[in-house]
Amino acid sequence: VDETFVLHEKLDADTMLVADWPVARVLLMNDANYPWLILVPRRAGLRDYHDVASEDEVALLGEVNKASRILKKITGAGKMNIGALGNMVPQLHIHVIARFETDAAWPDPVWGKHAAVAYEAGAGEVLIEKFNTAAKEF
Amino acid sequence: VDETFVLHEKLDADTMLVADWPVARVLLMNDANYPWLILVPRRAGLRDYHDVASEDEVALLGEVNKASRILKKITGAGKMNIGALGNMVPQLHIHVIARFETDAAWPDPVWGKHAAVAYEAGAGEVLIEKFNTAAKEF
Repeated sequence: VDETFVLHEKLDADTMLVADWPVARVLLMNDANYPWLILVPRRAGLRDYHDVASEDEVALLGEVNKASRILKKITGAGKMNIGALGNMVPQLHIHVIARFETDAAWPDPVWGKHAAVAYEAGAGEVLIEKFNTAAKEF
Repeated sequence: VDETFVLHEKLDADTMLVADWPVARVLLMNDANYPWLILVPRRAGLRDYHDVASEDEVALLGEVNKASRILKKITGAGKMNIGALGNMVPQLHIHVIARFETDAAWPDPVWGKHAAVAYEAGAGEVLIEKFNTAAKEF
């Protein structure tokens, strides 16, 4: 069913690849303001969160929760934000964002608040490696 | 397990009761800018979305998706926004918001964008009645 899945060009441009999990492609937003993952179900034609096929929805929920727990653990974040908005990029994607009371947007949502600050050379890769290592224990 | 559940006073003040579903209390935000539901799992001590107990998480996901489908259907919205943020109100609550390209905040997220506009007398109740009637078919 995922033969025609192609990652939206905006998501592709703004992120780095973390991993392909059974349902979702896990991406890291290239924004050093916040540890910020995006999970994109590798299925064509999804727009709203409730569009996810019944055979995928429990697995996808598990992947969202797993990503959230791992990111919270490796960053020590006080709060996780989860969101499926998609007003600008129509391809279904789920935000998993680690929040701190000291971060640039706190306590507001991160979207549209501050321009992205690209990771310094190698810093995104370090976070990805840490995430994928921790994922083995979840 | 839900004996000590008490709805957070801020959520109580900002919303109208729609229904109690098996896991979540369904609330309507008293903001005529957007058809906007909030689902609050009736369990004490939850903060992050990944805190939901494994015996509740599939049912809660079903309730979120059901609320989203119903609200989309009865409002004719073009897009649904789902979010679990909780930076200001620590009690876990899930936003289910019907979005239109003509709404006050489009295409931005609704949070922190415009002050709430209370429903005119009876208008919130009409939407709640419509929602609960449609819910019987879902």
